[in-house]
Amino acid sequence: MVDTQRVKQTMRVLAQIGRTDRGMMRLAYSKAEEQATNVLIEQCQAAGLAVRVDSVGNVIARRQGRRPELPAIGIGSHLDTVYEGGTYDGTLGVLAALEVMRDLNARGIETMRPIELFSFACEESARFGFSQIGSKALASLIEQKDIAALTDKEGTPIQTVFAKRGLDFSKLEEARLPRNRLAAFLELHIEQGPMLEAKNRSIGVVSGIAAPTRFSICVKGHAAHSGSTPMNQRHDALIGAAEITLELEKEARREMAHGTVATVGDIEIAPGAMNVVPGETHIKVDIRSISRASKARVVQFLYELMEHLRQTRRLEITCRMLSDETPVQMDEALIETVESVCRSKNIASMRMPSGAGHDTMNMAALCPVGMIFVPSTGGISHHPDEHTNLSDIITGIDVLESAVLECAGNAAEQKAGAAKDQ
Amino acid sequence: MVDTQRVKQTMRVLAQIGRTDRGMMRLAYSKAEEQATNVLIEQCQAAGLAVRVDSVGNVIARRQGRRPELPAIGIGSHLDTVYEGGTYDGTLGVLAALEVMRDLNARGIETMRPIELFSFACEESARFGFSQIGSKALASLIEQKDIAALTDKEGTPIQTVFAKRGLDFSKLEEARLPRNRLAAFLELHIEQGPMLEAKNRSIGVVSGIAAPTRFSICVKGHAAHSGSTPMNQRHDALIGAAEITLELEKEARREMAHGTVATVGDIEIAPGAMNVVPGETHIKVDIRSISRASKARVVQFLYELMEHLRQTRRLEITCRMLSDETPVQMDEALIETVESVCRSKNIASMRMPSGAGHDTMNMAALCPVGMIFVPSTGGISHHPDEHTNLSDIITGIDVLESAVLECAGNAAEQKAGAAKDQ
Repeated sequence: MVDTQRVKQTMRVLAQIGRTDRGMMRLAYSKAEEQATNVLIEQCQAAGLAVRVDSVGNVIARRQGRRPELPAIGIGSHLDTVYEGGTYDGTLGVLAALEVMRDLNARGIETMRPIELFSFACEESARFGFSQIGSKALASLIEQKDIAALTDKEGTPIQTVFAKRGLDFSKLEEARLPRNRLAAFLELHIEQGPMLEAKNRSIGVVSGIAAPTRFSICVKGHAAHSGSTPMNQRHDALIGAAEITLELEKEARREMAHGTVATVGDIEIAPGAMNVVPGETHIKVDIRSISRASKARVVQFLYELMEHLRQTRRLEITCRMLSDETPVQMDEALIETVESVCRSKNIASMRMPSGAGHDTMNMAALCPVGMIFVPSTGGISHHPDEHTNLSDIITGIDVLESAVLECAGNAAEQKAGAAKDQ
Repeated sequence: MVDTQRVKQTMRVLAQIGRTDRGMMRLAYSKAEEQATNVLIEQCQAAGLAVRVDSVGNVIARRQGRRPELPAIGIGSHLDTVYEGGTYDGTLGVLAALEVMRDLNARGIETMRPIELFSFACEESARFGFSQIGSKALASLIEQKDIAALTDKEGTPIQTVFAKRGLDFSKLEEARLPRNRLAAFLELHIEQGPMLEAKNRSIGVVSGIAAPTRFSICVKGHAAHSGSTPMNQRHDALIGAAEITLELEKEARREMAHGTVATVGDIEIAPGAMNVVPGETHIKVDIRSISRASKARVVQFLYELMEHLRQTRRLEITCRMLSDETPVQMDEALIETVESVCRSKNIASMRMPSGAGHDTMNMAALCPVGMIFVPSTGGISHHPDEHTNLSDIITGIDVLESAVLECAGNAAEQKAGAAKDQ
């Protein structure tokens, strides 16, 4: 049984590290994040795990199995936060992995496969504008040159940030895990959305992670006097941006069955005065889906919409693709394992896409992966008000533990089974 | 005949005062504006006019008529500019008034009525966010308390700005002109829009000045993760702002026959990040018409639209009216005078509304008013590229002079006429 008091206590300790008046400030590679990582390392060691920190700062803590030569089962998440973030995003998954280890210890269970806890470095893009450095390095998805030019908001180069944290940037590639190291990876995470709460489910079984395709779009018209320029003589850049915003929303609604979303999250305007027809706007567009086909349809729609506006509104529209990531499907067998755990425990679950990106996306390059969501109150995340009920947390850890045990194999049962088979 | 060389020369002198790399910077009550005003005063005195500067800084230069006791004919505009403005807006009207005086002198014409040149102080809102201080004070439309709290962008109180310019703010009300002082007021101004150029006319005969009704609208939704919040669970503030922008455009197009325009000129967004559904937007709305009824319909439409969005989009929308000015009609007799001058000179003219506000709006509280527009190349104004062809300038001054003469009466002809009548 998951130890509720122990979970609460560990949660409380971690929630104190980097706490400010305006939420959690535990940026990647910061002093606060280092302090939280050190607490984790101590607690892993106290739980008898073999701990190592790799060359990008990932913590990997291993609970040995009956058959150490077998690929391990990985579990975990991240301890870094955004600016003014909450206490659950990432941290919950690390804490859950620790609790699984402790509970297996308490229950005296030996697994066939080893289990490894991962606390990934720099999951959030908050510090460098680049996300998931730890898991990308582990999964051989990045090399030094891809991130060598990054600086944080204060202009400090990533190499300096690494050095201050006792890490050697030139050894980045040493973090790479061999492909046969893990048999599966499972991440418990808060939903960061409103669906589980709306549908009154305790567990979300993630079907896939919707990778974003992002655009920066510049709409140019002609700035003009708002009083003396008749409506039919205008080239109003804001009108163009507003049409893109609304039409993209309609198109994404048409694709809703595929979990597709499209967002204009930012807009800038020039000159931006009460009495001037806007001459130029810049918008940022984020389109996500776990279906490549659905996302491709929305992107195509956007291209056609821009062409239409160029012609009908006589606006100059330029579009720069900032990223175009491929959606990642969760492993069907792992999905079914988690669903069967929920059924056997009578826990209300639902399959759902993850709209947000996670380290699990990158771990998919190494092994089959799965994700378990627990509800976010009000759908709020990346915010001091981020919250998940304790009962949901305990349920989530319980489901994770059972799924891990299913994957890693209970040595006692396996022996019995093996004995039976003979 | 208007003296082209003299006009060019005076224009050139004024265009040097406050010139910067980024356009004209002759803010109200600034050193540059004072310098331009002093040049004007000298040239008025050289032309034999009786010059006075009133308590808000308006320059009034009088050319005596045969019958000094009769209400005068006022002509003029302003010498102050916006930040990074052009050389024609306002300045052209002052220069034209001066040239009318000079040309009447050159032609040895004595008018029955006196003619007064007005160079109004602080027409542009650029310095204090409050426009037409000079003409409003003249026309008894403001008193000290209405503008006592104004400060410029650097935080300097208007009282200090006045004092530095040698003016005493506490004497503001001394600028008020009695209602029988003027028989008519005529302002020559650049169009600041594209219509005359589009229709290939040299003169615009202004039918009315469309006063703005302005709103600051705040749309509040819920900021949420753009990946994990399904389209039908969002309260996207930018969507609300975009709908207002587009629907208002459609409604203004329906009212185009009344010269009505509606503009969303500025937008701010929070938090304004690629991966966050916008939680809050602020927009600034400017609605203008020379028809009170048409403007009222658009305003009513806006109110209903906001109510509709509150209900269908579940957004919180608050709307603050920033100003609600009444359109001003030009005097029909003056319109006809200008039109008949154009006809007699074979000059292509058209009646048109003024979308921009002008000092003439305020002078309408004192006497019948009229305005004459000359074309703005490309419709551009409040910009270093602001331009009007010299030939159009000369035509405009010529029309203004003829109209003034019509109103003020040529004493020689009147005598002849009077003799005939007897």
